[in-house]
Amino acid sequence: MDISEIIHQRRAVRLYKKDIPDDSEITKMLEAARWAPSGLNNQPWRFLVIKDSLQKNGLAEFTKYSDTIKSAAALIVVCMDVTDSYNRDKDLMAIGACIQNMLLMGHSLGLATCWLGEILNRKEDAGKYLNLDKDLEFLAVIAVGYSAVDTQSLDALRKPLESLMLKNSDVFKEEF
Amino acid sequence: MDISEIIHQRRAVRLYKKDIPDDSEITKMLEAARWAPSGLNNQPWRFLVIKDSLQKNGLAEFTKYSDTIKSAAALIVVCMDVTDSYNRDKDLMAIGACIQNMLLMGHSLGLATCWLGEILNRKEDAGKYLNLDKDLEFLAVIAVGYSAVDTQSLDALRKPLESLMLKNSDVFKEEF
Repeated sequence: MDISEIIHQRRAVRLYKKDIPDDSEITKMLEAARWAPSGLNNQPWRFLVIKDSLQKNGLAEFTKYSDTIKSAAALIVVCMDVTDSYNRDKDLMAIGACIQNMLLMGHSLGLATCWLGEILNRKEDAGKYLNLDKDLEFLAVIAVGYSAVDTQSLDALRKPLESLMLKNSDVFKEEF
Repeated sequence: MDISEIIHQRRAVRLYKKDIPDDSEITKMLEAARWAPSGLNNQPWRFLVIKDSLQKNGLAEFTKYSDTIKSAAALIVVCMDVTDSYNRDKDLMAIGACIQNMLLMGHSLGLATCWLGEILNRKEDAGKYLNLDKDLEFLAVIAVGYSAVDTQSLDALRKPLESLMLKNSDVFKEEF
């Protein structure tokens, strides 16, 4: 698969088979994450891997997407180490880049993933449940497994590129 | 190049040759950006492409990395449409994922890029210069061109994966 296929074919998958990915594949996702760019190369990301059913079920209590969390073979909790943070906006974007590396690597390995954000509505509770150090901010859960559903093309749900482009002639209308 | 090579070999490049990438290559980067994941699929990203030297030189006034901006063949200004935003933290992470798609696609096409964040110190001024609508928040400039420098492996500048991992036994020490 080339990068274009990987980017276009990756989908959020919310239901997984019982098969368990090899630890080496999770490690490849984490290695990919580690190579994301960050401002001042501060690499503020930290990761916690959860595979134990009891732990997954406990974390599932903090989101309405509990079925996805329980169904996943593994969860990668992504945190920011605030002691490494220097600009919250840039650090959040860097962590988004880091997560995208993970998702793309996972897809290229034949794994399905879901970036769960709704759980942030209870991030403090979830962080307490995980006994996260006070310097660690809970920012995302990435569910990982083998897809149990057929994913479809969702072109219709994407804004066309034209609607995302700011016209240069508009923004520079006074100068040019 | 497979995705792992692309992720590991991409580097921030701050000096470019005079050669100009074809518009179709910039479009491929923007198309890749468009397929990033976002919370509620809100796709809050917007893009402005700048190729004109006068415009580049004008924007270069707002950052100490003016040489990179002036040297780049093209700039992609990345904004958030705040009318599409529903959770700032999640939207910033989504925009980071969107930028990472751009950088990876660029690298796979043989283009060099630099994600410029320092200019955010003067984001309001830069946004005014670009005549950005009040609903558009200036979040990044991506410089694009053909590299004029030899990039080296920077393994030594990366935190080892082990230091990024939160130990499950620690965080669950009370439960398990």
